[in-house]
Amino acid sequence: MTRPIILTTGQWADLPLEVLAQKLQAWGYEGVELGSGGDHFDVEACLSSDRYAREKKDLLVKYGLKCYAISNHSVGQCICDDILDERHKAIIPASVWGDGKAEGVQRRAAEHMINAAHAAVLMGVPVVTAFTGSSIWRKLYFWPPTSDEVIEAGYRDFAGRFTPIFDAFAGLGVRFALEVHPTEIAYDIHTMRKALQAVDHHPAFGINFDPSHLIHQFVDPVKFLESFPERIFHMHVKDTRRNLDGFNSILASHLNFGDPRRGWDFVSPGHGDVDWEQVMRTLNRIGYQGPLTIEWEDSGMDREWGAQDALALVRRYSFPASGQAFDAAFARRE
Amino acid sequence: MTRPIILTTGQWADLPLEVLAQKLQAWGYEGVELGSGGDHFDVEACLSSDRYAREKKDLLVKYGLKCYAISNHSVGQCICDDILDERHKAIIPASVWGDGKAEGVQRRAAEHMINAAHAAVLMGVPVVTAFTGSSIWRKLYFWPPTSDEVIEAGYRDFAGRFTPIFDAFAGLGVRFALEVHPTEIAYDIHTMRKALQAVDHHPAFGINFDPSHLIHQFVDPVKFLESFPERIFHMHVKDTRRNLDGFNSILASHLNFGDPRRGWDFVSPGHGDVDWEQVMRTLNRIGYQGPLTIEWEDSGMDREWGAQDALALVRRYSFPASGQAFDAAFARRE
Amino acid sequence: MTRPIILTTGQWADLPLEVLAQKLQAWGYEGVELGSGGDHFDVEACLSSDRYAREKKDLLVKYGLKCYAISNHSVGQCICDDILDERHKAIIPASVWGDGKAEGVQRRAAEHMINAAHAAVLMGVPVVTAFTGSSIWRKLYFWPPTSDEVIEAGYRDFAGRFTPIFDAFAGLGVRFALEVHPTEIAYDIHTMRKALQAVDHHPAFGINFDPSHLIHQFVDPVKFLESFPERIFHMHVKDTRRNLDGFNSILASHLNFGDPRRGWDFVSPGHGDVDWEQVMRTLNRIGYQGPLTIEWEDSGMDREWGAQDALALVRRYSFPASGQAFDAAFARRE
Amino acid sequence: MTRPIILTTGQWADLPLEVLAQKLQAWGYEGVELGSGGDHFDVEACLSSDRYAREKKDLLVKYGLKCYAISNHSVGQCICDDILDERHKAIIPASVWGDGKAEGVQRRAAEHMINAAHAAVLMGVPVVTAFTGSSIWRKLYFWPPTSDEVIEAGYRDFAGRFTPIFDAFAGLGVRFALEVHPTEIAYDIHTMRKALQAVDHHPAFGINFDPSHLIHQFVDPVKFLESFPERIFHMHVKDTRRNLDGFNSILASHLNFGDPRRGWDFVSPGHGDVDWEQVMRTLNRIGYQGPLTIEWEDSGMDREWGAQDALALVRRYSFPASGQAFDAAFARRE
Amino acid sequence: MTRPIILTTGQWADLPLEVLAQKLQAWGYEGVELGSGGDHFDVEACLSSDRYAREKKDLLVKYGLKCYAISNHSVGQCICDDILDERHKAIIPASVWGDGKAEGVQRRAAEHMINAAHAAVLMGVPVVTAFTGSSIWRKLYFWPPTSDEVIEAGYRDFAGRFTPIFDAFAGLGVRFALEVHPTEIAYDIHTMRKALQAVDHHPAFGINFDPSHLIHQFVDPVKFLESFPERIFHMHVKDTRRNLDGFNSILASHLNFGDPRRGWDFVSPGHGDVDWEQVMRTLNRIGYQGPLTIEWEDSGMDREWGAQDALALVRRYSFPASGQAFDAAFARRE
Amino acid sequence: MTRPIILTTGQWADLPLEVLAQKLQAWGYEGVELGSGGDHFDVEACLSSDRYAREKKDLLVKYGLKCYAISNHSVGQCICDDILDERHKAIIPASVWGDGKAEGVQRRAAEHMINAAHAAVLMGVPVVTAFTGSSIWRKLYFWPPTSDEVIEAGYRDFAGRFTPIFDAFAGLGVRFALEVHPTEIAYDIHTMRKALQAVDHHPAFGINFDPSHLIHQFVDPVKFLESFPERIFHMHVKDTRRNLDGFNSILASHLNFGDPRRGWDFVSPGHGDVDWEQVMRTLNRIGYQGPLTIEWEDSGMDREWGAQDALALVRRYSFPASGQAFDAAFARRE
Repeated sequence: MTRPIILTTGQWADLPLEVLAQKLQAWGYEGVELGSGGDHFDVEACLSSDRYAREKKDLLVKYGLKCYAISNHSVGQCICDDILDERHKAIIPASVWGDGKAEGVQRRAAEHMINAAHAAVLMGVPVVTAFTGSSIWRKLYFWPPTSDEVIEAGYRDFAGRFTPIFDAFAGLGVRFALEVHPTEIAYDIHTMRKALQAVDHHPAFGINFDPSHLIHQFVDPVKFLESFPERIFHMHVKDTRRNLDGFNSILASHLNFGDPRRGWDFVSPGHGDVDWEQVMRTLNRIGYQGPLTIEWEDSGMDREWGAQDALALVRRYSFPASGQAFDAAFARRE
Repeated sequence: MTRPIILTTGQWADLPLEVLAQKLQAWGYEGVELGSGGDHFDVEACLSSDRYAREKKDLLVKYGLKCYAISNHSVGQCICDDILDERHKAIIPASVWGDGKAEGVQRRAAEHMINAAHAAVLMGVPVVTAFTGSSIWRKLYFWPPTSDEVIEAGYRDFAGRFTPIFDAFAGLGVRFALEVHPTEIAYDIHTMRKALQAVDHHPAFGINFDPSHLIHQFVDPVKFLESFPERIFHMHVKDTRRNLDGFNSILASHLNFGDPRRGWDFVSPGHGDVDWEQVMRTLNRIGYQGPLTIEWEDSGMDREWGAQDALALVRRYSFPASGQAFDAAFARRE
Repeated sequence: MTRPIILTTGQWADLPLEVLAQKLQAWGYEGVELGSGGDHFDVEACLSSDRYAREKKDLLVKYGLKCYAISNHSVGQCICDDILDERHKAIIPASVWGDGKAEGVQRRAAEHMINAAHAAVLMGVPVVTAFTGSSIWRKLYFWPPTSDEVIEAGYRDFAGRFTPIFDAFAGLGVRFALEVHPTEIAYDIHTMRKALQAVDHHPAFGINFDPSHLIHQFVDPVKFLESFPERIFHMHVKDTRRNLDGFNSILASHLNFGDPRRGWDFVSPGHGDVDWEQVMRTLNRIGYQGPLTIEWEDSGMDREWGAQDALALVRRYSFPASGQAFDAAFARRE
Repeated sequence: MTRPIILTTGQWADLPLEVLAQKLQAWGYEGVELGSGGDHFDVEACLSSDRYAREKKDLLVKYGLKCYAISNHSVGQCICDDILDERHKAIIPASVWGDGKAEGVQRRAAEHMINAAHAAVLMGVPVVTAFTGSSIWRKLYFWPPTSDEVIEAGYRDFAGRFTPIFDAFAGLGVRFALEVHPTEIAYDIHTMRKALQAVDHHPAFGINFDPSHLIHQFVDPVKFLESFPERIFHMHVKDTRRNLDGFNSILASHLNFGDPRRGWDFVSPGHGDVDWEQVMRTLNRIGYQGPLTIEWEDSGMDREWGAQDALALVRRYSFPASGQAFDAAFARRE
Repeated sequence: MTRPIILTTGQWADLPLEVLAQKLQAWGYEGVELGSGGDHFDVEACLSSDRYAREKKDLLVKYGLKCYAISNHSVGQCICDDILDERHKAIIPASVWGDGKAEGVQRRAAEHMINAAHAAVLMGVPVVTAFTGSSIWRKLYFWPPTSDEVIEAGYRDFAGRFTPIFDAFAGLGVRFALEVHPTEIAYDIHTMRKALQAVDHHPAFGINFDPSHLIHQFVDPVKFLESFPERIFHMHVKDTRRNLDGFNSILASHLNFGDPRRGWDFVSPGHGDVDWEQVMRTLNRIGYQGPLTIEWEDSGMDREWGAQDALALVRRYSFPASGQAFDAAFARRE
Repeated sequence: MTRPIILTTGQWADLPLEVLAQKLQAWGYEGVELGSGGDHFDVEACLSSDRYAREKKDLLVKYGLKCYAISNHSVGQCICDDILDERHKAIIPASVWGDGKAEGVQRRAAEHMINAAHAAVLMGVPVVTAFTGSSIWRKLYFWPPTSDEVIEAGYRDFAGRFTPIFDAFAGLGVRFALEVHPTEIAYDIHTMRKALQAVDHHPAFGINFDPSHLIHQFVDPVKFLESFPERIFHMHVKDTRRNLDGFNSILASHLNFGDPRRGWDFVSPGHGDVDWEQVMRTLNRIGYQGPLTIEWEDSGMDREWGAQDALALVRRYSFPASGQAFDAAFARRE
């Protein structure tokens, strides 16, 4: 059970893929999850050209890398979000945004997501990682008083928009891995349970496990994994540090990432509050077989220093599980 | 420095004010903050009738009570909120909702807030407690990527809408006490600082201090008080308990109050995580002279049992400050 | 939902029942769980005399008390324990001990337990509280190496001995409440689950919930209650304090109760590590309707002082649950 | 074992003793430790008049009070302190200060301490509570580098000055109770051990146990008591609260008592970090038979409110020890 | 003071000693504690052949290794255990088990233990590590009520059986190192004190210090070492992790090692709750001169990966003590 | 922003500078802060010889080292300390001590400090690190009762003695870096603020930040840095471990460094309670540009082992800050 250690490329979109690939090979990475920024990956280009997928794979092979997943987070965000603004426009293709009217954007985003599954087939990867958006995220704090029915409607909206997508994925043999994350339909254990129920536990619907989004919620990543052992389709190695001193709020005070007054922030893996050893042991225990995907983000550390530091961290905890039942092998314990 | 212990009536709107007043007298309360539900208080009725305010005051006097503040929270919510829905409609007067189009509702809500100050004058109370709403609350989590400019615009919007209100309050000698609270323009120390800056520290703008909204953010109520000692215009005795066991999220999982899976919930004062002794000592130290206003809310306790329990709690911590400098009075310490 | 506050009489067996009853009335108790020591209760006398049960009940009524349960712990211990010694002999009737050979004692103890259910019918009480003993307790620490099969055999032994007992109880409409406790077949959440499975979730088999036996195991009493909400047939208000300073062991060092070097000890309710408020709220939430039974034991406190202190504690946390859904009743929350 | 609850009068020296005695009787106190401020007690006056002691006792008896100890802290401070300044002058009789040259002051202070033992005999009290001062306190932090010999010399100085005092006390049947306290020769467990060794465990030398001086040192009061069970001659009920938030220093920043920036401060008993229940249980266990002496000091609370609050606290924890071995009395535990 | 880092071979009994020795040399180990499983070491073969010991030593020398101790744990277990079953039979030589009747097994086990000392002499090693068993372990929880006399009898039984063994060891110049461990006569600080008293502090009786057995008891390994500085004859580097989440019991729920529901489990050194730095500093301070013996056991990690990881851990903390008194060497500190 | 990692030489004064320099080069150090012990540095020799400074620099250059600061701690101690004894005499030049009368020593020490600034100019280093002493340190604990005026006088004394020194430093372009430390005029955040006020925030007066002196006070080093971001002129990498177990006092019990009964002690960096990652991130954030100066002191570790271990630690946390605003560079975050 030696799992490849790879990088998700979204935060490196300013570098041409080939430049990044060279670096990754030099550092010792074994593959990538391709993000859609820069020249890294373009779903529609992939579908419209016979050569696109082959050339991407060839480029990666040249540097000893393999693609394990396609990321389509930004477009996914626009499928259930129903209040859209310039922030959404900035992160999705113009063809999806169109005139920016919500219902049309949502519909085109859903189509694009299915296209991403087709692209995954062409790339030979088994999973698309993504967001879903949510029509009820902004009603998180139950004031003004919010009825249970309002919340139920939000999950039904998700089910209505995503069941056809999951059906399409299932037909193509590709899995959809939601990055459980605030702003999405599921962001913790209880909401993930609810989301699974909403789509009748659709077999194509699973999780891109990223503990950095759980830590600032005080959700234990180990309990999360144990709650959904069959649904961990992909995982991100990313970390968060809580910074609570009585002045700072866990809600982060409308301050941007990197501001020391925030109650929490993303940090390079191993520099935050994730207990990586227990996460890795639990992944061993539940039989997760996918890649260990470093998603690197830390406003206080040089990016290239960090990418190498993170790789070393993951290797430190990548010990194999015991190959045998313990007491079966030994005559005694002392 | 014996401060009156009173009740804010919002959670008792199902009882006629006179029924409630009888109970309060029997339990030992000294006054009320009048909420706008049921027959408790109606801003517009107050302004349109010469007798309204006098009759309310007489009724209270009959039961040994006095009114110390007017609550106008719900209408305040609609001044800066720009995405309005049925939840808002349910909590404000039909005259303010009108056709429900945002800009009109916001304008009428602002007018109503100024009317509340006029009503306060008629009632002889020095403070209106309220919410402000916020055009940026729903952008709390900075995804999709949110620029600082977007946030600045939100504070400017608040300043633009509220400066005239604060001017009107100042002209009437009434103070506006924002209940610092998620969903509002300020909900913690950093955002309250930002809000004060946005309105140039307008003298009519202060705080209805309610520690129950800080506890689940991990903000220390004592540090909050010490940050704004001059701006504490009113305070609520209300409590919150965090319930974090690794399964539950501090964001509360879109579950309603009272659900044991929430990561936090409101509880009767003294049954949660507020350190009341330190809060009370700090109020003594900064010279807060207003009432101690119990706001009672606990989904797991009988309301009348709780109202009496809360009063006993407040009395337990209502010790007078030392009347003299300590070492000045004593020959020595051993 | 006002539950009676009663006392279990085992620790007071040195006092004649009438003397104890007088005291209980004076202190404000509402009833008893009768233990089998002294003249308090004798299962076999009860079955052999028409008057016995009536006279006991009359005596209790004379002091305003009612019997809510029969305790048959000591005899129960001898049903599954298969290594018996003088310690067992000292606590059970001579008729059950007989010649002291294990299998015979175990069989006679099982018969006596069924008799206790008959006695409960005569007394008009719905529940017998008891222990079960265990043939595997002494193999708790898995050294020498212990196979899973050895453990499974222990649970099968329990099922074999107790299923007929539970059947008899069910036939009589009486419930068997195991005090989950080290030395018994179930002493925590995982072993209670296992015990329930072993007897196919027999409807007559439930729990006498006593958090004092969980605290020194670091099991959360609230999580215990939430794991078996339908099986809480009775409960004991008893407390434990952990005393871990690096020198003391949680296993208690073969030191007797009351020795300050123990890593934990029993203490009067409210003087230990049980979070009574959360226990009581959870009992409210799961709808427990039985008595709140104080079991008093504290080696460092006068017994009569303690019995009154404990009653005051229970009253402090015996607040009624909310009579109504919270948001349904109120127009708004502020 | 019902121990009297009394007050030490030092902090009330601004009130004539009779005024204080009236209040104490009204509040329910049973006696006093007389301090030397105001008209409370004067060692030299006591020795020079046949009537002085009798009149003091009569006055106390008039209000149902008894004197249990004489406090002579301030004079004691000047016995080992060898750098004296205006601060010392302010707290001792002019006759002891004289010309203020250190060696003379120290000698006269020692004589006065022996006089205090004579006065105790006249008053019929068995213990004088006091300080010792220390010639090495100011070398506490070992910079500039301090040799062990320098420290040893400090303890020898203490032994040289105090052995004659302890001999005199022993001859009179009076005990000397050092309030273990920073600035004295002993202020924690290790220094008390050292001080006892320095005077060969003189039988007249013991402890006035006051946990408020241990809490800010992070010394556990229970471990302190267990270290010197035979030497607890008297005790003070006084409390301390640590106030460490990352900004404040446990060394208190040269800020006076009452300043909220201090890392710790004295507070009314039960409002600080002393675990009174464990202190009281330990006093029971080691067989302490003396009074429970409230020393009241809290810069943030009204003094008279506090004196009554403290009395209620002590009563709450003054439960008698168990009168019998637990298992001896009961047939069984369930 | 460079102590050799070695491995105890019990958990590797499935590998022929030579295969293991090759691996140990490659990894950098310096020696072994020989366990009695597989072909590693056989006490009786050693005594019956002139060549056995020499050949074992030669084999080790071939791989740069040395033997520092003989382990005879399993046979030791049967000396005081008086309830024996198949679990015991499985771990001891058939010649010791014989007909399996307790008293005979106990006697033969005692003889075998003395033989182990003879074998140690032949091997040139100064210490035999072992267990003792205990006739009272199964009475750990004091229910049914257990008298102090029952416990005292258990220690007397130990003294009676082991004093002749210790005498024999002393005569041979070999030391007996009990691995302080649940199921043995001593398993924590208080019981080790008791065991030492029971044999009048026999000079041949000491400790094989293994902190993994203390951690789940909440006993501080540093306090353990400081309590018996002269008696640490050997030590094991082994680790334990507590896994207490409110559902799990520190008593481990009759679940086997490796089950994630256990309240604690063994883990590779450095992956658990032992504070190795403080353990190593304390070993330096008390002058422990023996080997640092890794005992490797972790149900969630590959054994060979772990053996190397553990060696690296021990090296990291194997810093030499300061060679000189600190202040003696330096002119000053800044 | 790659800061040099250097060593302060005070603790190595027993080694000739050249011997030390050889070692430092071999280990990988980049420079030194020269202390005044042994042949390392002599202020007066430097001023009296044209060659002294050049030769020192040449010697360092020979081993690839550079001098970044001059340490003049011991002489500085005698500027404000007004009770001087043999301990002071032992650490300063005889020419400064003279006849040892306080006022004269203080005056000569002040002159010597100005000379140190001249020497710094000759050496080409921008900062002198030092102590100040304090006339009020020994009045730290406010007993006997200490007036605020007494404390104020202490700060005025400091201002009077040091303002001319700071003026001289400013004239020479050298900065004075006080090592904030118990026994000095400033030892925490509040006293540093006070000291800065006392000298009107003199631009030559700043801080030699050493977190080891804050940890045992429970002052957060990060909060310290954030309080004085402009005044961090130099920093020491030194660590402290708290050792509080209920027996030990944070005041350290008049026990010397290295005694395990102390409540805290200095340890090699990374072996104590300093959170180096947060310290380093904060230094990045506030733009500290000076050297990272290891001051090595640990009574339980070999000095040379430690110096290398410390260097490795610092390198581990010496990651560069992010070169760019995070969100500016990336198209999106997932």
